Amino acid sequence: MERTPVDLAAKLSRVSQHWSPKVVARLNDYEIKVVKVQGEFVWHSHDDTDELFLVVDGELTIQLRDGDVVLRPGQLFVVPRGVEHCPRADGEVHAVLMEPTGVVNTGDAGGPLNADYDDTLTR
Amino acid sequence: MERTPVDLAAKLSRVSQHWSPKVVARLNDYEIKVVKVQGEFVWHSHDDTDELFLVVDGELTIQLRDGDVVLRPGQLFVVPRGVEHCPRADGEVHAVLMEPTGVVNTGDAGGPLNADYDDTLTR
Repeated sequence: MERTPVDLAAKLSRVSQHWSPKVVARLNDYEIKVVKVQGEFVWHSHDDTDELFLVVDGELTIQLRDGDVVLRPGQLFVVPRGVEHCPRADGEVHAVLMEPTGVVNTGDAGGPLNADYDDTLTR
Repeated sequence: MERTPVDLAAKLSRVSQHWSPKVVARLNDYEIKVVKVQGEFVWHSHDDTDELFLVVDGELTIQLRDGDVVLRPGQLFVVPRGVEHCPRADGEVHAVLMEPTGVVNTGDAGGPLNADYDDTLTR
């Protein structure tokens, strides 16, 4: 079996496009993804699932309709299912996402920031 | 709704006992736990689930029957379901675990290192 650790910084170093999560590991029917973000995303929600954000580098603001959550390195937050949110990063942020297989980044919103499924970093 | 980030280092600072995972967040029917470990655990497996280890501080060796995986800060590894493993830490290690709700730390092995369920750090 595979015995290579997943180095988050090394995986992130292979990401160039913002708002484009890449799968780096699988846990049952969940996926762990890395993502680089900068600027403002789009307001959206995921009706069927919670979504976990863990910041590795930079400062990420998760805007919610009733206020902001600010995440710094080593901090995580779980956006509950159905809750509208809009991530924003004034500088570049490196983050880890954890969510069930098949979740689309833009949730119910769609649009130009919709990212293709990408698991090339698992190899 | 709750809008407080989960600070992994702050949560870990409230842990004193080794090999005793504490729930810090929930994601659907999964839990994110922090744990401090030192010394050698017990050989065990989880027949029904994969288990994710992410090291925050220190160096963790996950012994497998066919070799070791060594994790340093920022590195993760998923032990597949049914695979015997035995974590070992020569110095103290701070780590994050992700697994479905209800997983027992010692899996099929049981014994004195079996930890009680503890979600006091979610509050």
